[in-house]
Parts: sequence; C-alpha cells; structure tokens
Amino acid sequence: MGGYKGRRALITGGLGFIGSSLARRLVDERAEVTLVDSLIPEYGGNLFNVAGIRDRVRLNISDVRDPYSMAYLVRDQDVVFNLAGQTSHRDSMIEPRTDLVINAEAQLSILEACRKSNPAVKIVFASTRQVYGKPEYLPIDERHPVRPVDVNGINKLAGESYHLLYNNVYGIRACALRLTNTYGPGMRVKDARQSFLGLWVRLLVDGRNIEVFGDGTQRRDFNFVDDCVDALLAAGASDTANGKIYNLGSAEVVSLAELARLMVELAGEGHFELVAFPPDRKVIDIGDYCGDYSLIRGELGWEPRVRLREGLAKTLGYYRQHGTAYWDRDA
Amino acid sequence: MGGYKGRRALITGGLGFIGSSLARRLVDERAEVTLVDSLIPEYGGNLFNVAGIRDRVRLNISDVRDPYSMAYLVRDQDVVFNLAGQTSHRDSMIEPRTDLVINAEAQLSILEACRKSNPAVKIVFASTRQVYGKPEYLPIDERHPVRPVDVNGINKLAGESYHLLYNNVYGIRACALRLTNTYGPGMRVKDARQSFLGLWVRLLVDGRNIEVFGDGTQRRDFNFVDDCVDALLAAGASDTANGKIYNLGSAEVVSLAELARLMVELAGEGHFELVAFPPDRKVIDIGDYCGDYSLIRGELGWEPRVRLREGLAKTLGYYRQHGTAYWDRDA
Repeated sequence: MGGYKGRRALITGGLGFIGSSLARRLVDERAEVTLVDSLIPEYGGNLFNVAGIRDRVRLNISDVRDPYSMAYLVRDQDVVFNLAGQTSHRDSMIEPRTDLVINAEAQLSILEACRKSNPAVKIVFASTRQVYGKPEYLPIDERHPVRPVDVNGINKLAGESYHLLYNNVYGIRACALRLTNTYGPGMRVKDARQSFLGLWVRLLVDGRNIEVFGDGTQRRDFNFVDDCVDALLAAGASDTANGKIYNLGSAEVVSLAELARLMVELAGEGHFELVAFPPDRKVIDIGDYCGDYSLIRGELGWEPRVRLREGLAKTLGYYRQHGTAYWDRDA
Repeated sequence: MGGYKGRRALITGGLGFIGSSLARRLVDERAEVTLVDSLIPEYGGNLFNVAGIRDRVRLNISDVRDPYSMAYLVRDQDVVFNLAGQTSHRDSMIEPRTDLVINAEAQLSILEACRKSNPAVKIVFASTRQVYGKPEYLPIDERHPVRPVDVNGINKLAGESYHLLYNNVYGIRACALRLTNTYGPGMRVKDARQSFLGLWVRLLVDGRNIEVFGDGTQRRDFNFVDDCVDALLAAGASDTANGKIYNLGSAEVVSLAELARLMVELAGEGHFELVAFPPDRKVIDIGDYCGDYSLIRGELGWEPRVRLREGLAKTLGYYRQHGTAYWDRDA
C-alpha cells in the first residue's frame, strides 16, 4: 500500500486495537501520524498498543465528544481515519445516550470541523456490520436492508450516514467500511466489550474455560487486524471509495463452536462449554452473519490474506507474552 | 375511530399543526388529552391552533429535550402520540446538532422514561418519507432502502429506529408512520420550514405570486391533515401496528406545477413562475416521490379520503379567515 509517505494522518481511537495497528503501518510508510484517544478505561485505548512507535507519532489525549480539540486536530490533516467509538452492544442498551453522543453527535462535530477548516481532507469511517441487524440473506451485501437491533447499531448507522452526506453535499471525501468481527494483537481482552473473542483469548491464556452462548451453531466471519488495516489504507488512498460503503468479510465462515474448538486446540489447554443465552444478549443477537466483500475486492482490490488458524495463533501468542499489559493476570 | 373515550393521551408537539388537529379529534372522542409543546418560534407550535379546545386539554409548555419534564409527563399516559420534531431540512443542514438533539436524543429520553416509569404505554411516532432519500422506484413501499439525503432524514431515521427497538427489546408497544407532505388548517405558513406548500398558501392569501423550483415536473403526494390524524388514531388503537412502520400516501400524485396551478385557481389570484433551484436546496432535493400505502390500508384499514382540491380549498379558506393568527398580514 503506497501513497502515505509524508502525508499527515489523524487516527481517532489511535490507541485502540485497530487504530494502533494502523498507526504502526502508517509510521512504517513514513506518514506523519497523529493519534487522538480518550483513554476511557472501558474502551479500547491502551498505551501499550503503541509501545514500539511511541516516539514516532504525535499523541493527543482528548475525547471525540470535545468539539474544540477535534476542530484543532483535524486542521492540516490529509486523511482522517475515524475509528473512535463506543463498541459494546450491551453498554449501548444500558447507557444509550452515551452511545449516541459518541457514535453520532461527535461524528457530526468532526465532520463540521472538517467542513469549516479542512474541506480538502479525506475521511475513512469505521462502521460496523451491526447496522444490518438480523440478516435476511447471506452473505450480506451492501444493499441488504439496514435494521439495527441495538442502540449501538442505530447510532453507528447515523454516524456512517453523516459521513456519506458530507461527501455528497459538501464534497468532503468520505467513505465507510462496515467492519465485521476483527481480532488480533492489541484487542481489548479484559472483557467482551469489543468482542466475545477477546474475552475468550484472555480466559484461555489464563488457563480457564470459555463459554459459547446458545447451541454454538451461529456462524460468523472474522478479519485479522492486519487485513482490516489493509482495507482502511486502501480506502484512504482511493478516490473511487468516496461516498461509498464497503463490507469487509472473510472467505472463512465458522460456527462459534468451531471457533471455540480451534482456539482451545491452539491454546493447548482449557475447554469450552455451551451455556444458555443470557436474556439481555439473546434479544440483541442476530443469528448467523457473514459479509459479501466482493464490492471492495472489485473496486479497491482488497481481500483478507490471513487464515483464521494463523491469526488466532498469533493473537494467543501475543497475549501469552504481553498479557500483563492488558489485564491483571493474578486477578 | 373508537376506543379513545376516557383514555389518557399525551401529544408531543401538541400545539403544532398535526398535533393540534389530533388533539381536537381526541377531545371530541372524550379522551383526556395532555399537550406538550416548546413554542419555539421557528417551529410549528401556535396557541391559536387550540383556540377552540383550550379549556378541554391540559397544556404543558416544555421541550422534549428536557428529560425531566418528559419523565414526569409520560407517567400514567395510555398512549403517546410522539409528534414533536425539528422539520426543516434546510435548518438541519445549518444547525445539524440541534436537529440531532431534538429528533434523536430527545426521542431516546422519552423512550427511556417510558421504559422506567410507564412500560405499558403505547407510542405512535411521526416519522417521515425523508428517511428514504432519493427514490429508486415508485411508489416507495416500506422495504425501499433508507438513504437519507439530509441531516434531518438521518436523525429522524434514528428516532424511528429507537421506537422499533424499544418495542422489540423491551415490549414497549411502539410503531412509526412515515408521513408524506401533510397540509391543512394549522400548518406553519410563515415560511417553508414545515413545507413549501405552507409558504405558498401564505403568499397566495396575501395576493402575491409563488415560485416553483426547477422545471415543476417533480411529482409529490399530499395528505390532508384530517387523513393524517385518522392514520395516527388507527395506529394508536391497534396492537397489529406494534413494531411496524407504515407509509402514508395518496392516490393523487401531482407535479409541483400542477399543484401550483390548482392553488392559484382556488385562490382566484396570483400566479406561479418557475425559478432555478437554489443550490442549497437542489443538493438535498429527491426528485419525484410517492408512497405506497397498501400496508397500512391492508392492516389498519386506513386510506386518505379528502381530495386534493377539496383539502386545498379548505386550507386557503382557513388562512383567509385566520391568517392574522399565523403571520403579520401587513408585513
């Protein structure tokens, strides 16, 4: 992925899982990288995620809900990778207003700031498969109806829509990637706020067992973080992407029981068991999901390259080595 | 429409155009009616709208953005007609955050208040055809993709989605009607904030000419306010409606030039002219629109009964008589 050398890139959520992996790649490409992150303990930011590149990025701790810091930070940027967000479906149901302010209102502030002080910027927004809700057909392409089943999905859809609107109405070049389950080194593993897979990683590394909700037959697709970063970089470098929405996805679609079995095998210890769905999860569960990513493959040449087995092994290895930076291993 | 006698009904936006017409019908049916309205000058509330029923309703001036007053007001209600909103597409582009707070955030507060203190309530939400964006086919049914072309459409979609979510997840019976252009006595005519048609009414009553943007061939459907009220009452009285979205619409679909010609004829004075689209309107214009209302016709037995010619004549007659209550006729 060329084209970033000497370019100024801002990453919101830059200390988070995907943001920090993206930062590392951009630093390698010799972009001038600014990271903005709120370091809210319940979210994904972790200074350890940028340990190796700390002196090669500009770090600004602030919250995307603060319109003044954002207005300052977006100035003079060539590209904004807009990744900051509240990601927990469950938290969005418990504190819907917080989710709204972060995932919708703050996005409007960022876009307004760009419109006023940096209309030539390019923005890539990290959206989510959650906007689709319960699939009517599989794999889901970008024309599938959007009927989110939780507050998070509704607000992410609004945030995504603002980006496309500012592209179409004001010519501020923006696009959105609808990410599916992304995993890898740097993900939040302390709890299931980012993904149940993160929690599983921690439990297995701690030598504990993992639980699969329901009968384990729900199917999902997964992207290793490096593949996700490839997609973000491709979208940020292409004007074909402007005004577009692209699904990510994977050719490997597995059931949660298969995933659990594979992770237990790779961990070399622990086992998994099926447990009944907690009622508050069941009601926002969407059943099977897999995304059709042929649009981004055709237009931007992206496709995932890391096999699930390989990505999971890397992830488990990372947390075996660095787990203390992500949770209290004596807890 | 039976079933409202003795029932407690709250109408948000109750001094507005549609809210006040609904209030009159509910009072006639001997419901116990509470109106909440902010009386913000730029919006639709007007005390004159309830002149005839002022002593038969409870009136509470407050803003749906005030979660405390809303939490108090929704208690003990049997049904909430949730009509308050920011309606101007143009204002939503100029002050996007205001539109977001009213059309999305305040809706969440209302729903949270119902969940906490009145989960047995029934809610009817006034949504808008604006959520569809530019039609891909006509007439638009409820399965048409939603791709709003302005901030107002994005936020109304979020507000609508919260209602369906609270129905599906928490069992708070809610449904949404996607209104099309509604007109009639009580509408805001001071400017085009509610509808260009309102502005046309004022200009013609004032003996002035009206302007049609573009070539006048854009087609639209229109509902007379009494028909819209019928639909709200039907939805509020039916549990079939819970969790549903219904289009309104009309069998009469006319071009804007035809509409202007008819209004000039009925007014007996003035004329209309075609003018170029102002750039800020053009970019959020959706071209032709008409809604397929067969779902609500089939499920709730609703269809519009007032012909356009009849409804427009009533509307012009009303403002000839009561115009001073809606604008300064010497201005």
